[in-house]
Amino acid sequence: MMSQMTPSERKVRVNLGDRSYDILIGPGLIAATGREIGARLKGRRVAVITDENVAPRYLDPMMASLAQSGIEAVSLVLPPGEKTKSFDHLIPVCDAILGARIERNDAVIALGGGVIGDLTGFAAGIVRRGSRFIQVPTSLLAQVDSSVGGKTGINSPHGKNLIGVFHQPDLVLADTDVLDTLSPREFRAGYAEVAKYGLIDKPAFFHWLEQNWQAVFAGGSARIEAIAASCQAKADVVAADERENGLRALLNFGHTFGHALEAATEYDSNRLVHGEGVAIGMVLAHEFSARMNLASPDDARRVEAHLKTVGLPTRMGDIPGGLPPAERLMDAIAQDKKVKGGKLTFILTRGVGQSFVADDVPASEVLNFLKEKHPQ
Amino acid sequence: MMSQMTPSERKVRVNLGDRSYDILIGPGLIAATGREIGARLKGRRVAVITDENVAPRYLDPMMASLAQSGIEAVSLVLPPGEKTKSFDHLIPVCDAILGARIERNDAVIALGGGVIGDLTGFAAGIVRRGSRFIQVPTSLLAQVDSSVGGKTGINSPHGKNLIGVFHQPDLVLADTDVLDTLSPREFRAGYAEVAKYGLIDKPAFFHWLEQNWQAVFAGGSARIEAIAASCQAKADVVAADERENGLRALLNFGHTFGHALEAATEYDSNRLVHGEGVAIGMVLAHEFSARMNLASPDDARRVEAHLKTVGLPTRMGDIPGGLPPAERLMDAIAQDKKVKGGKLTFILTRGVGQSFVADDVPASEVLNFLKEKHPQ
Repeated sequence: MMSQMTPSERKVRVNLGDRSYDILIGPGLIAATGREIGARLKGRRVAVITDENVAPRYLDPMMASLAQSGIEAVSLVLPPGEKTKSFDHLIPVCDAILGARIERNDAVIALGGGVIGDLTGFAAGIVRRGSRFIQVPTSLLAQVDSSVGGKTGINSPHGKNLIGVFHQPDLVLADTDVLDTLSPREFRAGYAEVAKYGLIDKPAFFHWLEQNWQAVFAGGSARIEAIAASCQAKADVVAADERENGLRALLNFGHTFGHALEAATEYDSNRLVHGEGVAIGMVLAHEFSARMNLASPDDARRVEAHLKTVGLPTRMGDIPGGLPPAERLMDAIAQDKKVKGGKLTFILTRGVGQSFVADDVPASEVLNFLKEKHPQ
Repeated sequence: MMSQMTPSERKVRVNLGDRSYDILIGPGLIAATGREIGARLKGRRVAVITDENVAPRYLDPMMASLAQSGIEAVSLVLPPGEKTKSFDHLIPVCDAILGARIERNDAVIALGGGVIGDLTGFAAGIVRRGSRFIQVPTSLLAQVDSSVGGKTGINSPHGKNLIGVFHQPDLVLADTDVLDTLSPREFRAGYAEVAKYGLIDKPAFFHWLEQNWQAVFAGGSARIEAIAASCQAKADVVAADERENGLRALLNFGHTFGHALEAATEYDSNRLVHGEGVAIGMVLAHEFSARMNLASPDDARRVEAHLKTVGLPTRMGDIPGGLPPAERLMDAIAQDKKVKGGKLTFILTRGVGQSFVADDVPASEVLNFLKEKHPQ
């Protein structure tokens, strides 16, 4: 049976030679999993990996859709949360995939947010030295960022995402209906990554978001457009630099400051989630660029105004519970980015949509900036 | 400093685009590790993974050579044996690599046989989504087979090598001096894989081995020639089919029967080691091909005569302790190779150096053949 797009559905192609794949974006895709997989996969067997938060809502409809298309499926439900990205959970996932006799033409499905996608993609990447893999992301963050591009992995005691592989999915199904059940805070956190694509190199998209963000938050076709534009932006970068030798680093715009803030709040999601860290980090990146005389302070103000309007935190002071001194934040940055001869690599900007990789940023300037922004 | 080859040293290039690498074959290479790495690597930090059998002989000379070249090294010594190819040992290896702050331009070194190479290569393949990796194989089997080609991995309760990645090394140092310390049985087991390359598609090489095997066993330039020819044969196949979509399956000549025999003897190395299983398996593959009227029985007799002359087992009856009935051997084959509609894929041959992939071999014919060769 051929895949049939509904009128509101969008398709983005990730061009990676013989590893190219489609991202489908639209309503009702989870209930169409069987149809979409049936149209693309030779095998007739899948293993679905999900978590305790997602399973009650979406596992049954997915399993029913697979059964209806004559696809045999087993499922494994993991505990939710960042701690699941560990060897402790990777091992039973690999066992479940092998136990289900998933072979060359069969597939492994990740049904969940970034944690489930990263863990499951890693398992798919190492079982039989690489098995077919389908992403069904259920958070906005996963739909516009982590489900696209093939980065998979788990955390190590030495740091986040330090163990993993590049393993591209064979298909991404971004069911936009699931976004209606996200909390406003979760949706906003994902929106920070949407805005990021505008700030990296798509000023017109950022302008469109400033005009249309309410429609994006409300759902419907503007939201599908925003997700498709984000996926297209990420797909373009990934196609140009799959293994992050250069350009792909731009996708980390706002993330160096953001990661430091996540570390400083000990990854406590009550205080700060990833997208919120990125929102504050993007404002800081603009302000730091202005301080280095690379960009106008007007751009920093414009970015902050928009992120604030949608309800995102934009300043370190917005984080509840206080932060350690600037020196400690700087230590976290130095752990994330290697400091070489007092210089570090940073994604800076010349203005909205004009980001670039700077590899000679003086660590002392970053520290002084942090001290100004976060006086003790 | 440039790498300088001694007159007796050979170099084989594995051509894989931007992942191409050299295999150096010759005496004294372990004591030259620092020189060879220093000539090729930007970084100045390595982690050496080895085992308790290899460490007492070769770890100190390697560490001294690295220190002399100004390369900082840490080492981790694991228990020897197949059980080490497990998540239980993979996790501390990953930790050791990260703990040593091995980064982009640094490297991970596997100093040991196939187990250490497979495990360490897998760890290098997943730390930071792929780290530089150097193979220093210390068995003949590892020098002519497992250290070349990028297959890495660990075992699963569901089967051997089911978890892993393709991760090519950046350099292979095959120090032929280490072969002098192998037991005759270990050397012969590795020799079975050398002979395999002749049987796959190099009849002149097989003929050369028939004439020169005593010199190969004695050491010196004939042995270096045989290893270089084997590495070149494997490099050619890997360059043509890195991820085993077709041609690379030929490298499994003799292995389907061999794996079944290894499983039937419960991987008890007192009874049968891998190379011995391959030796018997290659004779069986020739005999089965003759039975299918694909090849002359003379070729089977010729192959058996040579392997027997060098001291390898060539018949199922040569395995001490007896074997389960033919039906059980057939079950092991069916687990290894998927049976589809009563047919399975097998590497057969039309004669010495004329192997090919047959994907429609009737399972019933294999069973009848096994019953004849191994009557209860």
